[in-house]
Amino acid sequence: MKIIVIGATGTIGKAVVEQLGQRHEIITVGSSSGQHQVKIEDPASVRALFEKTGKVDAVVVTAGNLHFGPLDDMSFEQFRVGLESKLMGQVHVALIAREYLNDGGSITLTSGILSDQPIRNGASASAVNRAVEGFVLGAAIEMPRGQRINVVNPTLLTESQEAYGPYFRGFETASAARVALAYSRSVEGAETGKSYRVW
Amino acid sequence: MKIIVIGATGTIGKAVVEQLGQRHEIITVGSSSGQHQVKIEDPASVRALFEKTGKVDAVVVTAGNLHFGPLDDMSFEQFRVGLESKLMGQVHVALIAREYLNDGGSITLTSGILSDQPIRNGASASAVNRAVEGFVLGAAIEMPRGQRINVVNPTLLTESQEAYGPYFRGFETASAARVALAYSRSVEGAETGKSYRVW
Repeated sequence: MKIIVIGATGTIGKAVVEQLGQRHEIITVGSSSGQHQVKIEDPASVRALFEKTGKVDAVVVTAGNLHFGPLDDMSFEQFRVGLESKLMGQVHVALIAREYLNDGGSITLTSGILSDQPIRNGASASAVNRAVEGFVLGAAIEMPRGQRINVVNPTLLTESQEAYGPYFRGFETASAARVALAYSRSVEGAETGKSYRVW
Repeated sequence: MKIIVIGATGTIGKAVVEQLGQRHEIITVGSSSGQHQVKIEDPASVRALFEKTGKVDAVVVTAGNLHFGPLDDMSFEQFRVGLESKLMGQVHVALIAREYLNDGGSITLTSGILSDQPIRNGASASAVNRAVEGFVLGAAIEMPRGQRINVVNPTLLTESQEAYGPYFRGFETASAARVALAYSRSVEGAETGKSYRVW
């Protein structure tokens, strides 16, 4: 398969490239690194990316920013960071990707454990992660030509524990390599509309 | 209690006013009707509303627009209608309401069954309804002064079956009066961070 990984140089993305790269041709994409660059918040940038890559069999997105901060002084602009990036960025990729995806191809997005397990400073992240899950649920039943769409919902990465551990006290972590298996299931399996929780 | 109902002249809102009005003082608010008007998509309009009403014990929102349409030709602008209105509109009300809410007061928002049960034309609605649920989950653990926040998640209203039934074939409906009981539980109960499913 020819697979685009957007966010390929992030912690999860690198593990996905390592896992899927053993069996498939990977096109690595990042915001400032990788073989191609894209700004997922901008639909025109997403379309330009696919114009360059041409038809593919699978699209994986492990990109998208979130804002973390106390709800008490979170501005609406801060609340919207994740809506514009992690939600709409992934929606842009998913909807535009359909045109460049071969029949039966798959799209795999990324949410996160805050969709279901709240933490302090995470109100916007909980809203956004859950919205991504809802989008996949709704979009799956309207995908054309046998195309599939799933989402991977990881817990805190073991690799991120030093940076983010204080916000996630008591949470079990998962290694990026383990999380990458869920992307493999989505891309190489046959299911659609699924949320693969790695926690 | 002094309770603001935003969306008071809608089908659910009217039933909530009837249910809670038996025991409490209700301030009815709509986009173009009710005792006061508000545009929930505009934070300045929301703040102006609370400046007029003063301190309250509970805020109920049964307002917010969604876009329904085939995913195939849904524009990003259409996808965003619900994000701006049903999601951000309710986030605006919830975050601004905290300042005008008495200690121990409650905020009750509205999502909908598409958060978990997708239908054709409902991809944006599924994303938005689920995002509202995520926001409530995350916000509940950071509310100040004993304030509570919950969400009511209704199925298709019996009263809306004639208008929307074709989109919801096979779904069991609930009367607005039955849905209103969930708002009563949220406002008059003691729970927080809960999603009251009426389905």
